[in-house]
Amino acid sequence: MVSWKMMSWKLVAVVCTVVFLVLGILIGKFGIPPDLPSWLREMSIDGDSSFTERLMKEIRADNIEKNLKYFTQKAHIAGSPREEEELVNYIFNEWKSHLDSARIYPYSVLLSYPNASDPNYVAVQLENGTEADMSAKVEKILNPDQEEDPTVVNPFNAYSLPGTVMGDPVYVNYGTIEDFTYMKRNLSIDLNGTIAIARYGKIYRADKVKHAAEFGCVGMVLYSDPADYAVDSEVRVYPDDWWLPGTGVQRGTVLPRDGDPLTPYYPSIESAFYQKESDSFSVSAIPVTPIGYDDAIKYLRKISGPEANSTWQGGLNVTYRLGPGFIPPYSNSKLKLHVRTYNERRMTHNVIGYIRGEHEPDRYVVLGNHRDAWVFGAVDPSSASAAMMELSRAFGELLKDGWRPRRSIVFCSWGAEEHGLIGSTEWVEELVKILGTRAVAYLNVDIAVEGNTTLMASGTPNLYKLLHESAKKVENPNPDEIANGRKTVFDTWLANDPSDYDPTLPHIGELGSASDYTAFLQIGGIPCIDMSYTYSKTYKLSDYPMYHSAYETFDLVSRLMDRGFKYHQAVARLLGVMTMTLAEKVILDLDCTQYANKLERMVKDIQTHYGPLFEKHGINMDGVVKAIQEFKEAARNLHGRTETVELTNPLEVRRLNDQLMDLERAFIDPLGISGRPWYRHVIFAPSLHDAYGSSSFPGLTDALFDIENDPDQARRWEQVKKEVSVITFIIYSAASTMKGVNDIGGL
Amino acid sequence: MVSWKMMSWKLVAVVCTVVFLVLGILIGKFGIPPDLPSWLREMSIDGDSSFTERLMKEIRADNIEKNLKYFTQKAHIAGSPREEEELVNYIFNEWKSHLDSARIYPYSVLLSYPNASDPNYVAVQLENGTEADMSAKVEKILNPDQEEDPTVVNPFNAYSLPGTVMGDPVYVNYGTIEDFTYMKRNLSIDLNGTIAIARYGKIYRADKVKHAAEFGCVGMVLYSDPADYAVDSEVRVYPDDWWLPGTGVQRGTVLPRDGDPLTPYYPSIESAFYQKESDSFSVSAIPVTPIGYDDAIKYLRKISGPEANSTWQGGLNVTYRLGPGFIPPYSNSKLKLHVRTYNERRMTHNVIGYIRGEHEPDRYVVLGNHRDAWVFGAVDPSSASAAMMELSRAFGELLKDGWRPRRSIVFCSWGAEEHGLIGSTEWVEELVKILGTRAVAYLNVDIAVEGNTTLMASGTPNLYKLLHESAKKVENPNPDEIANGRKTVFDTWLANDPSDYDPTLPHIGELGSASDYTAFLQIGGIPCIDMSYTYSKTYKLSDYPMYHSAYETFDLVSRLMDRGFKYHQAVARLLGVMTMTLAEKVILDLDCTQYANKLERMVKDIQTHYGPLFEKHGINMDGVVKAIQEFKEAARNLHGRTETVELTNPLEVRRLNDQLMDLERAFIDPLGISGRPWYRHVIFAPSLHDAYGSSSFPGLTDALFDIENDPDQARRWEQVKKEVSVITFIIYSAASTMKGVNDIGGL
Repeated sequence: MVSWKMMSWKLVAVVCTVVFLVLGILIGKFGIPPDLPSWLREMSIDGDSSFTERLMKEIRADNIEKNLKYFTQKAHIAGSPREEEELVNYIFNEWKSHLDSARIYPYSVLLSYPNASDPNYVAVQLENGTEADMSAKVEKILNPDQEEDPTVVNPFNAYSLPGTVMGDPVYVNYGTIEDFTYMKRNLSIDLNGTIAIARYGKIYRADKVKHAAEFGCVGMVLYSDPADYAVDSEVRVYPDDWWLPGTGVQRGTVLPRDGDPLTPYYPSIESAFYQKESDSFSVSAIPVTPIGYDDAIKYLRKISGPEANSTWQGGLNVTYRLGPGFIPPYSNSKLKLHVRTYNERRMTHNVIGYIRGEHEPDRYVVLGNHRDAWVFGAVDPSSASAAMMELSRAFGELLKDGWRPRRSIVFCSWGAEEHGLIGSTEWVEELVKILGTRAVAYLNVDIAVEGNTTLMASGTPNLYKLLHESAKKVENPNPDEIANGRKTVFDTWLANDPSDYDPTLPHIGELGSASDYTAFLQIGGIPCIDMSYTYSKTYKLSDYPMYHSAYETFDLVSRLMDRGFKYHQAVARLLGVMTMTLAEKVILDLDCTQYANKLERMVKDIQTHYGPLFEKHGINMDGVVKAIQEFKEAARNLHGRTETVELTNPLEVRRLNDQLMDLERAFIDPLGISGRPWYRHVIFAPSLHDAYGSSSFPGLTDALFDIENDPDQARRWEQVKKEVSVITFIIYSAASTMKGVNDIGGL
Repeated sequence: MVSWKMMSWKLVAVVCTVVFLVLGILIGKFGIPPDLPSWLREMSIDGDSSFTERLMKEIRADNIEKNLKYFTQKAHIAGSPREEEELVNYIFNEWKSHLDSARIYPYSVLLSYPNASDPNYVAVQLENGTEADMSAKVEKILNPDQEEDPTVVNPFNAYSLPGTVMGDPVYVNYGTIEDFTYMKRNLSIDLNGTIAIARYGKIYRADKVKHAAEFGCVGMVLYSDPADYAVDSEVRVYPDDWWLPGTGVQRGTVLPRDGDPLTPYYPSIESAFYQKESDSFSVSAIPVTPIGYDDAIKYLRKISGPEANSTWQGGLNVTYRLGPGFIPPYSNSKLKLHVRTYNERRMTHNVIGYIRGEHEPDRYVVLGNHRDAWVFGAVDPSSASAAMMELSRAFGELLKDGWRPRRSIVFCSWGAEEHGLIGSTEWVEELVKILGTRAVAYLNVDIAVEGNTTLMASGTPNLYKLLHESAKKVENPNPDEIANGRKTVFDTWLANDPSDYDPTLPHIGELGSASDYTAFLQIGGIPCIDMSYTYSKTYKLSDYPMYHSAYETFDLVSRLMDRGFKYHQAVARLLGVMTMTLAEKVILDLDCTQYANKLERMVKDIQTHYGPLFEKHGINMDGVVKAIQEFKEAARNLHGRTETVELTNPLEVRRLNDQLMDLERAFIDPLGISGRPWYRHVIFAPSLHDAYGSSSFPGLTDALFDIENDPDQARRWEQVKKEVSVITFIIYSAASTMKGVNDIGGL
C-alpha cells in the first residue's frame, strides 16, 4: 500500500514531468508572442555606434602623411603612366586587399597637353619684329621636391586653341561678364582684335576665355595677381611661407563643359561614338595661356589708356591701365601669344572599391576624390587622396573584425578631373541607371586641406543636418581652438563661417561644377556634399595661393600647412562619420525639411532682388510660394512618418527611405536648363557666367540675366514666365513624391 | 521513513512540475526556431489564387452591356459637358464607392472642334465660280441610336489648319511617305499647289497630312475606301452588317505629337506656362477634311492623268487616276476644301481609382482606358470603358470580402485621348517622378471589342509571358471555337495569329503611339500592354469598318458585333487576371529573358535588311550582338536568383523586384530619339513616318530611312554609326541593372 502510494507519487512525478514539459513547450512556443527572427531584429536597429568610435581612432595622421608623400613624389597628370598605371594599380590593390572588392573603369578620352619641346609663352612683339619681355616657359625650381621630374608639364591652359596671335593688350580685371560689359558699355572700349590680360580668381577660367572671345578679343593671358594670391607677399612667399611667389603659375582647363568633349552625354566606353573634334567643344575659341606675376608686371606696366578704377587695381607695384595698346615707345608693339597646346586621346581610369551592405546591398553610399594632379598635387587632390586611402584602410580594419554596414559603401578614385571632371562624368554617364535608383548620396572631397583655419562645405540641403551633426562629433584638430572652448570641427566652423539664416549653424554653400559631384547631382539627381579644411575667409582669396602651380609639393603641405597632418585626419574622420551614419542608420539621414527651408530662403532672395521688376511685368512668385508650402507640409509629414514607423517592418522602412532618397531625383528635368541642357537640376546648377559658382533656380536666373538691356523685352519676359512655371511644377512634383503612398493623394 | 519517502516523491512531483514547465517554456520559446510573425509569413506568399477565380466569376456580361448602353446613349466628345461632367462624375462616384479612393485630375488643354454653323465640306469649283458635287456636311442617320443628339459633331479632322483652298486634285493612295516619294521620284508628278485625295488606312492620318504638305500640296481630303472599310460591301453595310456605308466618315486628329500642344513636356496644370498657338504644333500645315466614299467617288471619277497601278486601285467602281487635275469638261475646275475647324482651350479630366496594396502600397499596377469618343464611341472607347467599369466593380466585391492585394491597383479613365492622347500624357507628365519609380506596369485597353475573331495585343517583351499565360486562363467566349477544341482565349489567338518565331505562342506586336500607353512607355519607361478582341486578319483591314464614324452605336455593338457581350466579358477577365497576377505574386511577373530574345530577333532583322549595305560602309552590329549576349546572361541570372531567393526576406525580394521592374526604365534615354526627342525609348518608338506604327531601334531606323538617296552620304553614315553606338550602350546599361548588386560587378 505504502509502496503503491509511493509508486503512485513516483508516477505523478513522471506524468507531471512529461505533461508539464509538453505544456511548457506549447506555452513557450505559442503562448508567448514569438520573438522576431534575429536577422529581422538586426535589420531594424541602427548600427552599433561604437564602430564609429573605433573608425575614428583607427584613422591615423602619420598614415595620411605617408600616403601624401607617396602620391606626391612625382608629378601625375591625367593620362601619364604614373597616374594611369602606377597610382591606379596601387589604389586598386589596396582596395582589393582591404575592402570586399575593387574594379578599374577605363575610358578613352580626349586630353590636352603643352608641347614639351615648344613651350607656350607671352611676349611683346616690337615694331622691328623681334620679341621682348618673353615670359618664363618653365616654373623656377624653389624646392628639392620639384626637382628632376621630367613629367612636370609647363604652364598651360588645357584645351586652349593653339596658335600665335598678336594684338593690342587690354586689362580686363577678372574677366567676368560684368567686367567685360562694363568696359564695352560704360567705357566704350573697342575690344575687337585685342588680347585680354585677366587676373585669375572669382570665376571659372573657361568663362573668362568665353567672355573674351564673345567681346572680340583674339587671345587671352591669365595671371595670378598678388592681390589675390600673395596677400602679404612683400616678404614671405614660398618657400618661406605658403603665399604664391612671382614665378608660380596656375595651370587649369578651359573646357566649357564637363566630361570627354568627344562623347557628350554618353560614356567613353569601347563601343562609344566619338564626335569629330571639329564638331565638339574641345578647344577654346581663342588661344589662352597663363603666366606668373613676375611676368605679368612687364606687360601691365606698359599698358596705355585710362586708369582702371580702384576695385580693378591689383597688388602689383604699377598703375593698372585698361588699354587698348602700349604706352610709348611701345605704341606700335603688340602683345603676342605663342600657344602650342595640343589635344590627344588617351586612357584615363577610375578605381572603385566596394564594401557590401548586409541588409541593403543595393543602396550605395558613395564617396570620392580625384587622383590626377596638374603637377604634384599635394593639395589638389592628393591631400584628399591620402585621407581617403587612410579612411578606406580603417574601414577595412572594421571589416576584419566582423563589422558589416547595413548599406553598401563605394569608394571612388577619379581620373582626369582637372581636365574637366572627365572620369567622374563618364562613370556617372555609364552607370546612371544604377546610380539613379540606388545611390543614397555622394560625398566628395577634392581637397582635404587647403588651409588650417576652418571647415568649409557646399551641398544639397537634405545633407545639411548630417554634415552639421557629424562635424560636432569630430575633435578639433587645432589645440588653440580647443583651448578657446571650441572642442569640435563644428565649433570652429561656426565661429568662422556662420550661416546667414541661423547663428547656431555654420554656412553650407550651393554646388556649382567645381568638382566631381557635378555629374552625380546634375545627371543622377543624387544628394551631394563637397568639403575641405580651408584658410581664413578674411583673406578673401578665390583659391589657396599655390593652386595648380608646381609649388604644390609635399614640402608645402607638411611644413607650412598641416604639420602633423591633424587637419587631414579631421577631414578623414568627418568623411568617415558621415559615411557611417548614411550606411548604418535604419532610417536614412536625409532631411527634406531643410530643403523646404532652403527653397523658402531662395524665393525670398528672388523676391528681394526682382520684386519690383516682376510686378512691372505682371509676374509674381505666389505660385512658387504656394508650392513650397505644400512641399514643406509634405516634408514634415514624411519625417513624422519616419518617427512613428514600425522599424521591424522592412518594407515600410524601405518605402520611407525610398521617398527620402528619391526627393533629389524629383528636381531633375530631363530637358535640362534652357540653353544649357547638360545641367538638369532645376534648383541648383552651375552659374551661366561662372561654372564654378552655383546658381539658384538656374533657368530663371539665366532668363533674368541683364534682361533690362535686351531689346526684345517681350520674348525675354515670356521666358521668365515659363521658368517660373517650371519651378512651380518641379516643386509640386517633388512634394508629391514625399506624400503618403497609401491613398490617391500620394499619386 | 516511509512517510518521508512518500513526501519526497510528492516533492519530486511538484519540483518536476515546476522545473519541467519552465524548461518546457524555455525549450518552446528558444529551443525551437521561432515561427515568422504572421505578417511576415503573409508577405512572403503569393495571393490566394481562388480570388482570381472569384474575380472572373464576378465579371458579368449583362453588367458590361448595361454600362455600354449608358456610356453610348449620347455623344461624348472631349471637352463636352456630358464627357467632362456627367461621365467624369459617374465614374468618380462608382470608384469612390467600390474602391479605396478616387480622384479627378483636371487639365486645361487646347482642343479642336468643327464649326457647327459653318460645316466643313469638299466641292468641285467650276470655272464659272459655282460649286458642284458638294460633299455631305453631316453623316446620314441610319439608326435610331444616332438620332436627336445635337452634341454629335460633324465630320472633321481635329487641329486642321482652317481655311479655303483650291487646287488640282491628285490621288495619292494611302499618302504614305513611300506613296508620295513614288509619285514624285518615279512618276515625276509635280505636286505643288495640288490637293491630295488619300484613302484612310495603313498609317496615322497626321502623317498623311504631314507628307502632303512636305510634297507641296495645299490641302488634303481623306476618305474611307470600300477596299479598306467595306470589303464585302456590295450587299451588306450598316445597318445590315458591320461594314461601313458610303455615308460614313472617319473623324480623327491630325495632331503630330501627343499631349496638349500648348504645354509640351509639362502638365497643363494651373501653374502651367502656355505657349502661344503660333509657337506650337497645334494645327496642321495645310487644311484637311474627311469624307465618305459616296462623296469620294464623285471626285475620283473626274480625276485625269495616268492610271494608278493595280495596288493603288481601291474598291470603288472607278478607274483610279493620279491627276493632277480633272478630266474634260472639268479641266479648268478645281477641287475646293472649305475647313472651319477651330481650336479652343477647354477642361478635360482624368478619373483615377485606387485600391491600396497591403504590403507594397508604393508599387502600382496601373490599368486604363480613355473615356472620350468622337461621337457615341460604342467601340472606341466605350467597349473598354464598359468592361473596365465592370472589372472595377468586381474588384470592389472582393474588397468587401476582406481581400486586399499585395500591391496597389490604379484604375484610370482618360480624357481627350482622341485629340492626341492628351489626358494620359498630361497625367504622366505631372506624375512622372512617382510613376517612374513606382509603377510596375501599365495595361491599356482602348477598345475592348472591335471584332469577335481573336485577341490581338501589342506590348513590351517583359509582359509577353504574363499575357500568354493569362490568356490561357480565360474561357473562350466563342462556343464554336470551344467545340473545335480551342477552350481558351489563348487557343483561338494562337490559331489566328501565331508568332513568327515560335509556333506555340501567339504574336504580340510592338507599341507605336496609337493609344494611352505612349506616355507610360516613352516618358516613364514603364512596361506596357495594349489589347483588344478583333476581327479576322484575313480581311487585311487597317481599322474596324465603323471606326470614328457616327455609326459606332450601341446598336452596332450589341446587334452585330457581340451579342450577349461574351467577348467584352473575356477581355475584362483577361485584364483582371493580368492585374491580379501583377498585384499578387511575391516575385513580379515580368520576364526579362523575353526581352533578350526579342532584342536578338530585332538585331537579326536589321542584319538581314541592312547587312550588305552596312558592310559597304564599314559598320557592323558585332558590338550590339555582344551587348545582347551580356543582357541575356544577366537576365537569366536575375531570374535564377528569383527562383532561389528566400521569400521570407522582404528586402531581398524587393531588391529583385526592383531589378525586374526597373529594366524597362533602363531603355529610356533622356535625350530622346535623335530628331524626335519627345520619344525616349531607345528600343521601341512610334515610326517616323507613321506614329501609329512602331519602329524597332527607332533612332537607327530613322537614320537609315531612304539613306541611299541622300546626297550627303558621309553625314548620314556617321549618324548611323552614332545610333549603333547608342543602342550598344543602352543594352549594356540595361544589362548592368540586372546584374547582382552584391559585388562591384553590379556597379
